[in-house]
Amino acid sequence: MINLDEYIVQRIKRIDTELDGFLPASERLPASLHQAMRYSIFAGGKRIRPLLMIAACEAVGGKMETVLSAACAMEMIHTYSLIHDDLPAMDDDDYRRGQLTNHKVFGEATAILAGDALLTQAFILLATAHQGESSSAADRLRVLQIIAGAAGSLGMVGGQVVDMESEGKTVELPIVEYIHTHKTGALILASLQSGAILGQADTHAFAALTRFGECAGLAFQIADDILDIVGEQAIIGKDVGSDVHRGKATYPALLGIAESRCRAQELRNLAIEALAHFGKEAEPLRALVSFIIDRSR
Amino acid sequence: MINLDEYIVQRIKRIDTELDGFLPASERLPASLHQAMRYSIFAGGKRIRPLLMIAACEAVGGKMETVLSAACAMEMIHTYSLIHDDLPAMDDDDYRRGQLTNHKVFGEATAILAGDALLTQAFILLATAHQGESSSAADRLRVLQIIAGAAGSLGMVGGQVVDMESEGKTVELPIVEYIHTHKTGALILASLQSGAILGQADTHAFAALTRFGECAGLAFQIADDILDIVGEQAIIGKDVGSDVHRGKATYPALLGIAESRCRAQELRNLAIEALAHFGKEAEPLRALVSFIIDRSR
Repeated sequence: MINLDEYIVQRIKRIDTELDGFLPASERLPASLHQAMRYSIFAGGKRIRPLLMIAACEAVGGKMETVLSAACAMEMIHTYSLIHDDLPAMDDDDYRRGQLTNHKVFGEATAILAGDALLTQAFILLATAHQGESSSAADRLRVLQIIAGAAGSLGMVGGQVVDMESEGKTVELPIVEYIHTHKTGALILASLQSGAILGQADTHAFAALTRFGECAGLAFQIADDILDIVGEQAIIGKDVGSDVHRGKATYPALLGIAESRCRAQELRNLAIEALAHFGKEAEPLRALVSFIIDRSR
Repeated sequence: MINLDEYIVQRIKRIDTELDGFLPASERLPASLHQAMRYSIFAGGKRIRPLLMIAACEAVGGKMETVLSAACAMEMIHTYSLIHDDLPAMDDDDYRRGQLTNHKVFGEATAILAGDALLTQAFILLATAHQGESSSAADRLRVLQIIAGAAGSLGMVGGQVVDMESEGKTVELPIVEYIHTHKTGALILASLQSGAILGQADTHAFAALTRFGECAGLAFQIADDILDIVGEQAIIGKDVGSDVHRGKATYPALLGIAESRCRAQELRNLAIEALAHFGKEAEPLRALVSFIIDRSR
């Protein structure tokens, strides 16, 4: 068994160093914009998507260095989506992870633009060959396609729209699944697939990591929904029960907490099963899916 | 001399057909999002950036088909920037090109997400090899880097932030130039450079088209600022004098209209001079820069 805590701490440290290097300096013109971009990137994210991308790359025998820029790009896309989700016109949240949201600190206009700039910065990173990376231009383009596709109108943004439109309505399980697989699942799946491609996975390994990503993505969102109900505010950093108050379409709302926990465990098992043909290189990935489900924030 | 009107009409027709094909269908889930994306794309844009990209490619002997997807991506990025600029938190405009702005029709949340999705869709296009295109993966990545760089925090978004922060303040010419070269100039320059790369320009031709793009971009913005003051509302489709009312940093505000017109003509001449070593293939490009300056909307 690996020491997952140590694995996570080490990799997060490296991811944070790289994120710092990949973002324009705070004092660079326009300083307010770069400060706003940095504020949300360093506001306590769990770095789950970059960790999964690194672990997927390692699971197929690749090196962490090969995926660092893509992993940072993924975190930038995730962060932009949170900044825009929190806006007054959307979820209108004042706090995220226990800190003021971007627009509360920098104003709405700068928050919108900081989100736009983070999304764009992600594509600058993905299009550029960085030191220590040996990926071919073709692989880089494939990763770009997968990540952009997962982030766009048929992926994450699409999920956000359906989520918004479902608020306060009675929705059925297929719609909840659509929202989850698109709003959260798409980027998680893309993280696994990008790690696989940049780690030079063969077709079988790519398919297995895809299966893992589908299960882990849905399990992650169910765990999130449960935390929203039973978590402690001090730990999760936002208002407990805020989804319920908004009438958000969630698993626990439809199936109850016990049944939702059961479904999350089932998905964890399916995710781990998908890695049956992987060796010890996949240990971090196996451990990460449990970490995702059992986390308290 | 070419018949520029015919050239423009034909190419715009083709660009519009391609844009239609590159956007998800209106009825595709989430339909509201795809309708909002299509609404602004087909709201009467002049297609100046795609036209410039096509003309640049043709100027170096390339075929229009080679740049169509990149030209459409550029128009999507331009359109996303207009949707976000018009938002209540930014310029708070109700009309653009004589039509209601995106958020007035679809609501603020959908407008933000439609902008996000258009930006992302542009990168999906740029990362994908389309029929009739023969660009290498390396060239495609180079174009992606140039376009993303021009759109990001050190390009267009940066210009928008400085523009916003300068409203109502007395600003000097260097700041006005920063705003123009970033907010408008960056995408225009990137259009020329992308056309050059995809048309297989050599180093000299690339440098000449870069010079052309720098001059044309600034000339375009000066013409825009003059139109804001002397244009007819019915023709330009937005309130005349809205820049003045907002205390926007513009050329005419700093230098007066006559001097600004003079500067635009000067830049047009410099742009055309930059094409001195090009043959008749560059006729459309030469004609386009005059069209940009002499337009009435």
